[in-house]
Amino acid sequence: MITLTTAGESHGKGLFAIIEGIPQGLKIDLEKINAELLRRQSGYGRGARQKIESDKVEILSGVRNLTTLGSPVTLAVWNRDYENWKEFMAAEGCNVEARKVENVRPGHADLAGMKKFGVSDARNILERASARETAVRVAAGEIFRQLLEALNIEVTGFVRSVGTSIDKATYSFDEIQKGRSKDLCMLDRKVEERAKKEIDSCKEEGDTLGGVLELRVNGLKCGFGSPMTYREKLDARIASALMSVQAVKGVEVGAGFSLAAMKGSEAHDEIYYHEGKFTRGSNRAGGIEGGIANGQELVFRAAMKPIPTLMKGLNTVNFNTKEPAKASTERSDVCAVPACEVVCESALLCEIAKVVSERLGGDTIIEWKKRYGELVL
Amino acid sequence: MITLTTAGESHGKGLFAIIEGIPQGLKIDLEKINAELLRRQSGYGRGARQKIESDKVEILSGVRNLTTLGSPVTLAVWNRDYENWKEFMAAEGCNVEARKVENVRPGHADLAGMKKFGVSDARNILERASARETAVRVAAGEIFRQLLEALNIEVTGFVRSVGTSIDKATYSFDEIQKGRSKDLCMLDRKVEERAKKEIDSCKEEGDTLGGVLELRVNGLKCGFGSPMTYREKLDARIASALMSVQAVKGVEVGAGFSLAAMKGSEAHDEIYYHEGKFTRGSNRAGGIEGGIANGQELVFRAAMKPIPTLMKGLNTVNFNTKEPAKASTERSDVCAVPACEVVCESALLCEIAKVVSERLGGDTIIEWKKRYGELVL
Amino acid sequence: MITLTTAGESHGKGLFAIIEGIPQGLKIDLEKINAELLRRQSGYGRGARQKIESDKVEILSGVRNLTTLGSPVTLAVWNRDYENWKEFMAAEGCNVEARKVENVRPGHADLAGMKKFGVSDARNILERASARETAVRVAAGEIFRQLLEALNIEVTGFVRSVGTSIDKATYSFDEIQKGRSKDLCMLDRKVEERAKKEIDSCKEEGDTLGGVLELRVNGLKCGFGSPMTYREKLDARIASALMSVQAVKGVEVGAGFSLAAMKGSEAHDEIYYHEGKFTRGSNRAGGIEGGIANGQELVFRAAMKPIPTLMKGLNTVNFNTKEPAKASTERSDVCAVPACEVVCESALLCEIAKVVSERLGGDTIIEWKKRYGELVL
Amino acid sequence: MITLTTAGESHGKGLFAIIEGIPQGLKIDLEKINAELLRRQSGYGRGARQKIESDKVEILSGVRNLTTLGSPVTLAVWNRDYENWKEFMAAEGCNVEARKVENVRPGHADLAGMKKFGVSDARNILERASARETAVRVAAGEIFRQLLEALNIEVTGFVRSVGTSIDKATYSFDEIQKGRSKDLCMLDRKVEERAKKEIDSCKEEGDTLGGVLELRVNGLKCGFGSPMTYREKLDARIASALMSVQAVKGVEVGAGFSLAAMKGSEAHDEIYYHEGKFTRGSNRAGGIEGGIANGQELVFRAAMKPIPTLMKGLNTVNFNTKEPAKASTERSDVCAVPACEVVCESALLCEIAKVVSERLGGDTIIEWKKRYGELVL
Repeated sequence: MITLTTAGESHGKGLFAIIEGIPQGLKIDLEKINAELLRRQSGYGRGARQKIESDKVEILSGVRNLTTLGSPVTLAVWNRDYENWKEFMAAEGCNVEARKVENVRPGHADLAGMKKFGVSDARNILERASARETAVRVAAGEIFRQLLEALNIEVTGFVRSVGTSIDKATYSFDEIQKGRSKDLCMLDRKVEERAKKEIDSCKEEGDTLGGVLELRVNGLKCGFGSPMTYREKLDARIASALMSVQAVKGVEVGAGFSLAAMKGSEAHDEIYYHEGKFTRGSNRAGGIEGGIANGQELVFRAAMKPIPTLMKGLNTVNFNTKEPAKASTERSDVCAVPACEVVCESALLCEIAKVVSERLGGDTIIEWKKRYGELVL
Repeated sequence: MITLTTAGESHGKGLFAIIEGIPQGLKIDLEKINAELLRRQSGYGRGARQKIESDKVEILSGVRNLTTLGSPVTLAVWNRDYENWKEFMAAEGCNVEARKVENVRPGHADLAGMKKFGVSDARNILERASARETAVRVAAGEIFRQLLEALNIEVTGFVRSVGTSIDKATYSFDEIQKGRSKDLCMLDRKVEERAKKEIDSCKEEGDTLGGVLELRVNGLKCGFGSPMTYREKLDARIASALMSVQAVKGVEVGAGFSLAAMKGSEAHDEIYYHEGKFTRGSNRAGGIEGGIANGQELVFRAAMKPIPTLMKGLNTVNFNTKEPAKASTERSDVCAVPACEVVCESALLCEIAKVVSERLGGDTIIEWKKRYGELVL
Repeated sequence: MITLTTAGESHGKGLFAIIEGIPQGLKIDLEKINAELLRRQSGYGRGARQKIESDKVEILSGVRNLTTLGSPVTLAVWNRDYENWKEFMAAEGCNVEARKVENVRPGHADLAGMKKFGVSDARNILERASARETAVRVAAGEIFRQLLEALNIEVTGFVRSVGTSIDKATYSFDEIQKGRSKDLCMLDRKVEERAKKEIDSCKEEGDTLGGVLELRVNGLKCGFGSPMTYREKLDARIASALMSVQAVKGVEVGAGFSLAAMKGSEAHDEIYYHEGKFTRGSNRAGGIEGGIANGQELVFRAAMKPIPTLMKGLNTVNFNTKEPAKASTERSDVCAVPACEVVCESALLCEIAKVVSERLGGDTIIEWKKRYGELVL
Repeated sequence: MITLTTAGESHGKGLFAIIEGIPQGLKIDLEKINAELLRRQSGYGRGARQKIESDKVEILSGVRNLTTLGSPVTLAVWNRDYENWKEFMAAEGCNVEARKVENVRPGHADLAGMKKFGVSDARNILERASARETAVRVAAGEIFRQLLEALNIEVTGFVRSVGTSIDKATYSFDEIQKGRSKDLCMLDRKVEERAKKEIDSCKEEGDTLGGVLELRVNGLKCGFGSPMTYREKLDARIASALMSVQAVKGVEVGAGFSLAAMKGSEAHDEIYYHEGKFTRGSNRAGGIEGGIANGQELVFRAAMKPIPTLMKGLNTVNFNTKEPAKASTERSDVCAVPACEVVCESALLCEIAKVVSERLGGDTIIEWKKRYGELVL
C-alpha cells in the first residue's frame, strides 16, 4: 500500500518526502523527475524566485543502482537559497525577528494559521503552507508516473483557461501530450496569445490570474475504486487529492457541473458492444461511474484561484498592532496555472498509484505487471 | 477520533452504520433523525419507492437512555420492503435467478462493477452501489449534527438549480434555514415553479434531471483543517466527502470555478479589524484559506448529474448475451436533487465532525464544549 | 483491504460488527460460525450466563445466497437476555438507576473508565468493556477462517496451562486440531484433570484462575508482513491483536521469553536445503524472522490473567461515596481460558486476514486463490 | 495526531524520519537527542561498527530556532560510513555485485525477504531490515520524550537480564532512572558482573546473548487508551510498538505471564481511598486495566532474542547455489540488550505520544499542557 508523507519549509533546508509501498524492481529515471521539476518552475508569468531555485531531486533512500528496493523511498529537493536564509530559519538558534511577517495576506493560511498555532509571526505558518511544498510532491509524482507507466497507465493534462481566455475545444489524450505549449501548457495558440496578453496587463497592474486545468488518465483498466464503501470511491479520492493542491477551489469529473443542467437522456454514456468489447459513444462521466473506473479515460478539471500575493498589495491588517496595512509581498508570480497543472498531475498520479497498489497488492514490479495484466479490461 | 463505517444492500435487511468516537454524554433526539430521513425521501419528482419505505432509525448500540455512552453507536435503517425481497436476497440460501439484472445501466456502477467483482448479475453490484445506502448516512449525519450543534456549529443547504432552472441570488445562512421549500428545497419560489415544470415535462418524456446544491457551515471557529499536511486540508477532506455521494460530479468551495476567471484583486477577501475582531467584506474563499477554516461561513456547492435510471430506457447491452438492450428500469425518480442535498449535508456533517474530533480530542461532551469554547474565534 | 469494526453492549440489544474487504464469492457456512460461538461459551469452569445466551450469528448484509458480495458484511449476535434488560439499557428512555454499579471492580476498566468518561455509574463503562464484546469478534473470526481456509491457511490453538497445571509438551498442528479436549481445550488429559481440580477448589473458595494458550497458523506462505516499515511487521501486528483480547497480559512468538536466556547458537533455526526446498530443523522463531512470515508454522502464546470478578469479592471502594466495599459481582466464571483461546484465535484470524488482503489485493475469491497460488512457497 | 514514518538503509546515505503532529512551540534540545543516540551505540559487548558511526541527529524541517513549528519534523541520522559504501549502495548507478550476500542468515529477514521481494542478493533486504533503522527511531523517540516531559510524563527502563544473569528485584521509577549502569543498563551490580562474564565467554566462543528489559512510564494520567474499541486498547498498541523492535520476541505488561499461574485473589490490585485519592497496594496490572491507563505506573517487559549474527557462523545455505554454507557475518555485537532497551524506550515513547495526541487534540504545546492539566488524575 502506497503512502506519501511530505515535509519541509519554503525557506528551510529543503522539501522532503517519504514514499512507502513502491514495489521492488522499478527502474528510476532521475532526469525525468528533474525535467518535471523544471516544468513546475517554468511558464509564462512566473516571478524571480523560480529562477533562483532550479530544483533537483536527491534520492536519500529506497533506491539502489537506480532500482527500487521495496523499502521506503526518501526524496529531498534542497532549497538552493537556504544559505541566505539560514540565519533566519535554522532549526538551531537563529534570528526569528528579522524576517517577521505581520501583515497577514488575504487568500493565504496566514491569519487562520496564526490563530490556530498561537504565533505572532506569519512566517511560522507561511513557510509550510507555501506552494513551495509542491516541489517534493512533484518529485514523488514522477516516481508514481514511472510506476504507473510500467503498467501502461499514463497521465497528462493541460491548461484550459487563464483568466478569461478559455479554450473550450475537445482534445484527445495524444493531442494533449504532444500539443501542449511550454509557455502556458495550452493547446490552442490563439487562446494562449490572448492569455499572455492578460498576464502582461495584469503584471503591469500588479495583479494576478488563475485558470482552469484539465487532467487525463489513459490506460487505467476498469474496476479501480469501489462502490462498496464511501471512502473507496475513486472520484472522491481524486477530488480530495486535487483539492489538496494550493489554490484549487473546484474539482469536477467528466462533464462535471455542466451535467447538472442536462437531461438524463443527454448526460449518460450509452453502452454498445463492438468487436468483442463494450464501448461508449461519449465520456461525459469522465471515466467513473458509481465510484469506479469504467475503463474509459479519466477526465478531471480543477479551478485555480488567482495567486493571492499581489504586487499591488491587498488591504489587510497588521496581526499584532491591528493597524490597516498592505499585505506583505515578496517577489511573486502573476500566473502559475501551468505550474498548478504540473502539481495537479502529481496529486493525481499519487492517488492513482495508491488505488492501484491497494487492488494489486504485490511486492515487486514483476508481480504488479502480471496482476495488472490479468485484470479484465 | 470519529469514524463512520456503513453497510447494507438496497433490498437486503437494511442499512447499517457503526460510528466510533462520539463523546460520552450527548443527548440524542430520535425524532430529529427520523425527520431528516423523511426529508431524504421527500421532494417533488420522487418515484414510488420512497413511499414504500418511510425510513426510521433504530439505535442498536452506544446509546442508553437517549445519551451516548462513548462506545460505538450502531444504527439500523431497516428495509420495510425486505419481506418481499427475502426469497431473492437472503443471506441464507435464496433464489438468485429471479431478480437477475443483465441489461447494464449507463451511469451506474453496473458494468464496471460486474467486471471488477466477476459476476454475471448486476444485482450483486447495484444492491450496494444504490443511493439507498445514503439512508444510513443521513441517520448518522443527524447524530453528527446533534453533536456539532452542542458546539453551536450548524449546517444547512439548499438547491440552487434543477436542470436549467437556476437561482443565482445570494442568501444568508438564516434565510436558507428558514426559507427553503419542502418541495424542492429551493429559496426562490419563481425558480422553483419553473423547476417543477421542467420536472413535469421530463416525467412525461420518461427523462430525468440533476441540479446544483449549496451547503453552508455556520459557527465553525477558525483553525479547523491544517496547512501542514496535504491530507489534513479541510477543503480536500470535504471535497472527498461530497464527491463520495452518489451522482455528484463536481464540488467547489466559495466562488469556486468562477474564481478562475477573476483577477487576484477581485478574488480575495480583504481583511479588516473592527470592534475587536478581524473581519472581511466578502467570502469568496468560502471560509477556507490555505486548507484551514478561517472563521467565516463555509460555502460548498455540489453538482448532481441527472438520475441515470430513465423510464424511457437508455441504450445498452445485455452483459451476458452482448445483445443490444434497453437499460433495466425499476420504478424511479425524475429528480432527486433535494434528496441529494440532504445526503450532502450528512456527508459534510460527518467530515466536519471528524475534523472537530481530531482537534478537540476528549472523551465527553463536557470536555468537547469546554475545549471548543477555549479556541480562538 | 480488510477492516473489522465492532460495537455493542453486554446487556444491550446485541453485539455487532462490520467487516469491509471480504472478496466476492466466498461461500459462508453459518453452522461453523455458530459452532465456534458455542465453543466460546463452553468449557469447564464457566458460570451461569453462558447457558442463558447460546449465541447465534445473524448476517445483516454483504452475503446473498450464502455467498459474499464483496460489500461490507454486517454481523449481529443478538443478546437473548435483552428483554430482561430493556428497561435498564434501552437506547430510548430507560431506568438507569436500577442497575447502577458503584463498587468499582479491580482488574476491570471500571475505575479508570469512569474517570475518563465522566460517569458515576460503572455500568456505562463495563457494558462495553465486557468480554461479551468478543462474541461478535468470534463470529467475524469464523468468516476470516473460512476466507483463509480457501487459501489452505489454517489456525488452531490449545490451552497450555490453567493456573499451575501446565502442559509443557510439544505438539504438531494436527495433534492440536484433533486432540484438544472439549472441557478445557487441553491436550494432556492428566494435566487437564489437575486443572479441573484447581478449578473446583477455586470455585469453592470463590476464586478464579487464568492460564496460557498457544496458537498456530499452518499453511501461511513466506513473505507476509514486511521488514520495510515498523508498522508492517507481522509479529507486531499479531501482538497487538492478541493483547487487545480482554484479560491477555503477555504475548510471545516462538520460544518467546525463553529465547532471552539462550545463546545465539541455540536460539536460531539453521537453514538447510533438502529436496528442492529450504528447510529448518527447528522453529524457535515461531515462523517469523525480521517481521516476516518465513513459511514455517506461526506459533504464538498469550497469557490470560485470572478473571477479575471473584465471587468472594475483592476489596474496593464505592466510587461515589468513597466508602470501602466489596467489588460488585454478578454471576461469574471461575476459569475462561478455553474461551480466551477461542477469542485469541479470532483475533489472530482477523489480523492474518488483514495482512493477506493487503498483499494479495484483489476483489474476488478467485483472484485471491490465483494470486496466493502464485506466491513463492 | 502524531505519526512517525521512517526510512533509510543501513549503509545508505542515512536514516530518515518524518514526524507529523508535533504541536507548535515545543523547545527542542538537540544534545539530549544525541546523548540518547550515543547510549544506543554504547554498552558492554558491542562490536566495532558502533565506534565508526557516532550518530548525530540533523533536523531538516519542522523546527526553527529550536522550537517546533507544528509542521512535519524531518530527522536525518547520516551514515558516516557512507563514503566507503557509496560505490556499492548509491541510488544512482553503482556496483551491486561487490557486496552481494548470498549465505542467508538464520534469525534475519534474509531468506523470507529475498523470496518476498524476488531478489538474489540478501543485501537488498538486510540493508533495510537491519537494526540500524532504529537509530532514527531513537532520535524521534527523544522528540517524543521532550514532548511528554512537557506534560510531566516520563519514561525509563533497564535491563533485567542478559542471558542467564537475571535481576528479579523490585525497583521504583527513581531507582531505575538514577541507578542504571552505563555498561549494561542494569541495577544490581552483582548480576551485572555475572552478565559481563557471560558476555566475555560468549565473545570467546563467537556466540551471542539476548535478555529481558523492563520499561516504565511515570506520570501518565488515567484514561489513556480506551476499552471501547479493540484497536484503541493501550496495552495492544504498546505491545505492537515493542514487538516491532528488531529481535523482540515477547512482550508482557505488569506481572505478565506470571499472572497466568496466580489466583484471582492474588492477581488483582485492590482499590482503596486514601487522602482524597483512589490508591492501590500493588501494581500487578502494570498500570492498565480494561485497555486503559489506570493512573499507576506503566510496566512493560520485552524479551530480546540473542543477536542472530554469530562470529562462529550458523549453518545455512547459499540462496543461489543451494550449497551448504556458514551464515554471512560482518563485524557484529555479542550482546545488544542495553541498546534494545534504548530502542524499546523510543518505541514506547512514540506510542504514548500518539495516544496522548489523540486524546488531547490541540495544535500548540500550550493547549496540550492546559488540556492535560485539566484531565482527572
